[in-house]
Amino acid sequence: MRTPLDLSVEELRARFGHRTVTATMQCAGNRRADYFPVRPVSGDPWQPGAIGNAEWTGVPLADVLRAAGAETGGELHVGFAACDEVEIEDERFRYGASIPMGKALSEEVLLAFAMNGEALAPEHGFPLRAVVPGYAGVRSAKWLAAIDVRDTPSDNHMQQRDYKLLPPHMTKQTADWQAGVTINDMPLNAAICEPGRDTTLPAGPVILRGYAVVSGRSIARVDVSADGGRDWSQATLERHADAPWSWTFWQARIELPLGEHELAVRAWDSAGQTQPALADDTWNFKGYLCAAWHRVRVTAV
Amino acid sequence: MRTPLDLSVEELRARFGHRTVTATMQCAGNRRADYFPVRPVSGDPWQPGAIGNAEWTGVPLADVLRAAGAETGGELHVGFAACDEVEIEDERFRYGASIPMGKALSEEVLLAFAMNGEALAPEHGFPLRAVVPGYAGVRSAKWLAAIDVRDTPSDNHMQQRDYKLLPPHMTKQTADWQAGVTINDMPLNAAICEPGRDTTLPAGPVILRGYAVVSGRSIARVDVSADGGRDWSQATLERHADAPWSWTFWQARIELPLGEHELAVRAWDSAGQTQPALADDTWNFKGYLCAAWHRVRVTAV
Repeated sequence: MRTPLDLSVEELRARFGHRTVTATMQCAGNRRADYFPVRPVSGDPWQPGAIGNAEWTGVPLADVLRAAGAETGGELHVGFAACDEVEIEDERFRYGASIPMGKALSEEVLLAFAMNGEALAPEHGFPLRAVVPGYAGVRSAKWLAAIDVRDTPSDNHMQQRDYKLLPPHMTKQTADWQAGVTINDMPLNAAICEPGRDTTLPAGPVILRGYAVVSGRSIARVDVSADGGRDWSQATLERHADAPWSWTFWQARIELPLGEHELAVRAWDSAGQTQPALADDTWNFKGYLCAAWHRVRVTAV
Repeated sequence: MRTPLDLSVEELRARFGHRTVTATMQCAGNRRADYFPVRPVSGDPWQPGAIGNAEWTGVPLADVLRAAGAETGGELHVGFAACDEVEIEDERFRYGASIPMGKALSEEVLLAFAMNGEALAPEHGFPLRAVVPGYAGVRSAKWLAAIDVRDTPSDNHMQQRDYKLLPPHMTKQTADWQAGVTINDMPLNAAICEPGRDTTLPAGPVILRGYAVVSGRSIARVDVSADGGRDWSQATLERHADAPWSWTFWQARIELPLGEHELAVRAWDSAGQTQPALADDTWNFKGYLCAAWHRVRVTAV
């Protein structure tokens, strides 16, 4: 076992260079609410708001690993041990998670002490947190206490028995967590933020606004539909080429005649990938990775 | 304008180090046949066989660019000029294409002189071709004559007025090529290779075999269905962690009762991304990027 590198947050800030990365932070359960009409799922019924975007400032994790003389082989993992305690299924434990070494060495992965130019707020992980752009929020451990380099992923409940993508036939009773795919990078997604669902609005022109998001690729096109996906037109994208880990805002102007309408949005990424149409196509009992076309019902009067 | 670097193929092979990369080469129109039942499209009606996988050996393009003293800024493009002539719409021109500089500098991009350990066959681009793993085959120019570094993508027809993803409402008459998304990286895809379509086979256990493919990510799971996608089970993957640009073979054993069945396959990648269900969801008049669930009708007797 190597001698550990012990650093206060002040020492960490003084010893290493600082880097700022604009990155989206998204729960693996974002949009889980859209699964409930298919079949009930476990977890909070998030609408598309379990997501945010911020400017994170910190020290590159790679620099700290190198300074600690850590091994950096491609088969290794980097574990984060946090200060907070979690209680799940009558088990009480310290929060922890891990990421593969390849990601840990990427320049965008930070040990962050500031968010949007200010010290982290307590609820965002003061004094120090991991920020793993592109990955589900669960890997960006807050209130960081320790980091270790490991042969295997973290033993923590959050890594081993949760936040995995399970096949559609598995239930809480039959879940085989070993057979699940660990959720790290998040799939292509898009949401209509305006108008909100079940809005009543004047017939005629209406501006739709929302976000699209993808991990490690860029958003190439966003399509909107006023008729549930039969006909599509293209939205305008607000591009920020210098912020590859940020979500992309889009807007589109459509004409809504009198009556009820199902608005829909779907994105395409730089690999020509688009989203599945139906939440049924990705349903899993934990309600993760809901990335079907986002649909919003509105009434034009 | 810089003084060009002139090299014979022999000089190129002697001056630079060699590298071997196993990579899938896929036409942007692979599986185009699956679009025809939606609405007719232009181009050859490829089944899922417009794809192959080989061990390519050559010189890293990045090394040649650096030796030529080329600028390597992120906004630049690298153009390939080929020796072959193409005739399209009564226009006759030399084949050409380009790739973004970021990709050109990646270690997997080769100027290849060998395929599966033997000199390139004439039809594969002898004596030298580009190999751009992950990208549609159109960018891997054969019979390479010259390479240039450019401010803009290639002016060639193949780059400007073809091989772009156009919105579903555009036709040959209304195509706005400027509005299209250039096809480079290819989307997640999977196909059933055995049994073939419209096969009659004995009822009982049957082994399904096929490939899954993704650009810049890995295949995390492959699902197969014997009932057109209502119920799914998981296939076994043949993993080759050392060949990230290669397709992934899968196989699955299912039970087929007497009667007609629609077999289906869908893949999931390491970002939790899966494929759209229907060819209608990605239809475009040129018939590119057909990556819906692949379906094969069989009869069990």
